[in-house]
Amino acid sequence: MAETRDRIVDSTAELFRRQGYTGTGVKQIVTEASAPFGSLYHFFPGGKKQLGEEVIRWSGQMYLQLFVTVAGDAPDVATGVERFFDGAAETLRETGYADACPIATVALEVASTNEPLRKATADVFDSWISAATEWFAASGIARERARELSLHMLSALEGAFIFSRALRSTEPMHVAGAASAAAVREALAAASGKA
Amino acid sequence: MAETRDRIVDSTAELFRRQGYTGTGVKQIVTEASAPFGSLYHFFPGGKKQLGEEVIRWSGQMYLQLFVTVAGDAPDVATGVERFFDGAAETLRETGYADACPIATVALEVASTNEPLRKATADVFDSWISAATEWFAASGIARERARELSLHMLSALEGAFIFSRALRSTEPMHVAGAASAAAVREALAAASGKA
Repeated sequence: MAETRDRIVDSTAELFRRQGYTGTGVKQIVTEASAPFGSLYHFFPGGKKQLGEEVIRWSGQMYLQLFVTVAGDAPDVATGVERFFDGAAETLRETGYADACPIATVALEVASTNEPLRKATADVFDSWISAATEWFAASGIARERARELSLHMLSALEGAFIFSRALRSTEPMHVAGAASAAAVREALAAASGKA
Repeated sequence: MAETRDRIVDSTAELFRRQGYTGTGVKQIVTEASAPFGSLYHFFPGGKKQLGEEVIRWSGQMYLQLFVTVAGDAPDVATGVERFFDGAAETLRETGYADACPIATVALEVASTNEPLRKATADVFDSWISAATEWFAASGIARERARELSLHMLSALEGAFIFSRALRSTEPMHVAGAASAAAVREALAAASGKA
């Protein structure tokens, strides 16, 4: 039964990425998950809203884990940044520009319409900002500068998803990645007294 | 009658900004516009899809005009960039974080689900990228660099809307604006041989 629950969460996450929260119905979710209709309400008595909140938090955690893995494998933070953006560009291209940020579409849809889900996206974004800030700070960048770098980098990433998906082009993602990596290199040089 | 059509377009644009395309129904549109139900189909025989495409293109043009006005009033391009982001932050704060990019939510919702609307958002984004590129190039920045700056700036703007709305904070927008202005100043210095 745990497997069915996982399939429901997984299918919902994919539908949210591709079409958002509003356009995703419970019938489509159970169909995609090959799950009996009643199983959704068995695992999520609160229905789509409860499932939505769980999927936002779970997807946000998965995406943070992906960032940590890519970043951890890189020889330095600037290279880690560039690899993460390039990986996002490659995934977009491979999936016909469908597979992007797991929660951005939902975040915009619910920001002014659904407070519990808005709060879930805010918690996810806060966790990303904190993790990136810690990562930059650990490489010697002052904490305040590290937070600014993180906010600008994550904003550029989210915006590049919008432009790349709409324009069906990896150019915005590659440009945003190169610019973000350059900003990190500059902050590192300033921190080590070279600039 | 032309006034009714304008009210329909205007109300739809506001609903798209706040809740996206998928969650906006024709009944809500005519209610918000104080228009008779039939008038929507009188002016837009293709219904919500036709209206949606018109609103995307019209909103995109209005937003470009706002950028041109703010940018044109500034003493230099870097100040123009910072003022535009600061103005966006102020608008977010004043509207309870509801009034953001006119087409971002729609762009993400339709990118993989509705090709005519996807094309409309792509045309709008292309017009913004071209206008910003021309503006930067006119201040002496090489065209290729001007395009990169534009893509990075617009991505940061769109992403900052997502973070600011979700976090109910103007910080992401102000940080993205300051960073974008700094990147423009650097490119200007490089173009004039000062760096």
